[in-house]
Amino acid sequence: MTSLPYVHGYSPRESARLGAQAQTLAELLHQDERYPAGARVLEAGCGTGAQTVILARNNPAAHFVSVDVSRASLERARMAVEREGLTNVRFEEADVFRLPFPDAAFDAVFVCFVLEHLAEPLRALAELKRILRPGGTITAIEGDHGSAYFHPDSELARKAIQCLVDLQKRDGGDSLIGRRLYPLLDRAGFAEIKVAPRVVYADPSRPEMVDGFTRNTFTAMVEGVEEKALRAGMMDPISWRQSIADLHQTAGPEGVFNYTFFKARAVKLGTNK
Amino acid sequence: MTSLPYVHGYSPRESARLGAQAQTLAELLHQDERYPAGARVLEAGCGTGAQTVILARNNPAAHFVSVDVSRASLERARMAVEREGLTNVRFEEADVFRLPFPDAAFDAVFVCFVLEHLAEPLRALAELKRILRPGGTITAIEGDHGSAYFHPDSELARKAIQCLVDLQKRDGGDSLIGRRLYPLLDRAGFAEIKVAPRVVYADPSRPEMVDGFTRNTFTAMVEGVEEKALRAGMMDPISWRQSIADLHQTAGPEGVFNYTFFKARAVKLGTNK
Repeated sequence: MTSLPYVHGYSPRESARLGAQAQTLAELLHQDERYPAGARVLEAGCGTGAQTVILARNNPAAHFVSVDVSRASLERARMAVEREGLTNVRFEEADVFRLPFPDAAFDAVFVCFVLEHLAEPLRALAELKRILRPGGTITAIEGDHGSAYFHPDSELARKAIQCLVDLQKRDGGDSLIGRRLYPLLDRAGFAEIKVAPRVVYADPSRPEMVDGFTRNTFTAMVEGVEEKALRAGMMDPISWRQSIADLHQTAGPEGVFNYTFFKARAVKLGTNK
Repeated sequence: MTSLPYVHGYSPRESARLGAQAQTLAELLHQDERYPAGARVLEAGCGTGAQTVILARNNPAAHFVSVDVSRASLERARMAVEREGLTNVRFEEADVFRLPFPDAAFDAVFVCFVLEHLAEPLRALAELKRILRPGGTITAIEGDHGSAYFHPDSELARKAIQCLVDLQKRDGGDSLIGRRLYPLLDRAGFAEIKVAPRVVYADPSRPEMVDGFTRNTFTAMVEGVEEKALRAGMMDPISWRQSIADLHQTAGPEGVFNYTFFKARAVKLGTNK
């Protein structure tokens, strides 16, 4: 009961979407992620390496171990890192619930867009805490689809987003997890928890955000679940098409789009356990 | 057709709420509002002076003219300003749709939590543009109740917030106006429009925000429309009571609350018209 279906799938288009997302959001989410020389950092759930490349490039003197349950994703992550000429990442196939590392093996843990896909995020956090040394830090980044609102407002667009939320829930995940990072880390026993909302705001004065986020990240993500949503009878094809047209309007000449990511940092206190 | 009912009413409790709100949000919203010495600034819709005091204190060498349609509110604003020993504010009873000032009389306009209450915000912006000199700036600040989300999530709490949105709509206002500031200013013909979301994030590590915003600003605001919402049959009394209890949970030991204000700045270009 560890590897849940990944709501977004593994298509080439999804991979392109993840690339666009990582680039647009790199500065917003990862720019301030800095590790000292020699730090041993575990990236849990690296996927196809969209974040791995940014982290490894920004922290050339830190040592990354990036793990994922999907061998295919790992292979692509490995290629992405090689393409960039980065040599400070080691990849391993591993399950975040049962990591093949001894207690206290890492100075830091980085987990981004992963907890949202887990039925038991608390159990994952407990395992991540185990492999972290006392005094070590965890960085957890998640979105929250309930934070999305836009102009022109559209009931159909909101309904399509709800399909995504419901599909992810059906798969055992929680796409509204961003707002819960504080209580989750608190329950997992982490200390000094600091959560910072990282807001994406896109209006016509910010064309790169409109393109990189509204159109090619968020709307593309909703479009990506069309087949699943229709097959599940969540919406009819005509309403679906209209909902996507409405989402594209929010990237139009009068459109505005808002979305919030949450970046949390916390510390493992005390002795190991 | 100018003076619409004010959804929040004019009770002493509402006045206390506005005070708490202004203090909590002063830094977030107004800290960067700076006017050069000698600048003539119109504050449109000053209400009881919650923002007036902050502006006048932060800009002692600027000259403020603060107007409102409510004589009672103006009287309280005047007292608040006097209590602070501020002498750079002149108050006038005036309608934002028909300001008693010649064209191009001001260097800057400040309008905060006002457009949301107007049935014709565009017409108000046109009038504000008229009294602004070419090259002058407008600052518009608004909230957006659709930006509110929280943990624990609660359908009833969301329903109570929707009552507030619907009541304000019934009065001709739009409590979702924050996301529309860019297109509104654009349509009104302003240039160099820059909109910045100002996010309130309150979790247990920020007790002053939990208290000042979640509890005493937002929840108090929803509680304030109980009578209207029940009288309008929007919710039954038992559900209402539960919805308020649920909102208070978001200020509890596991609670998280998110809300976004929008601060826009824009310029009037060209010659006067």
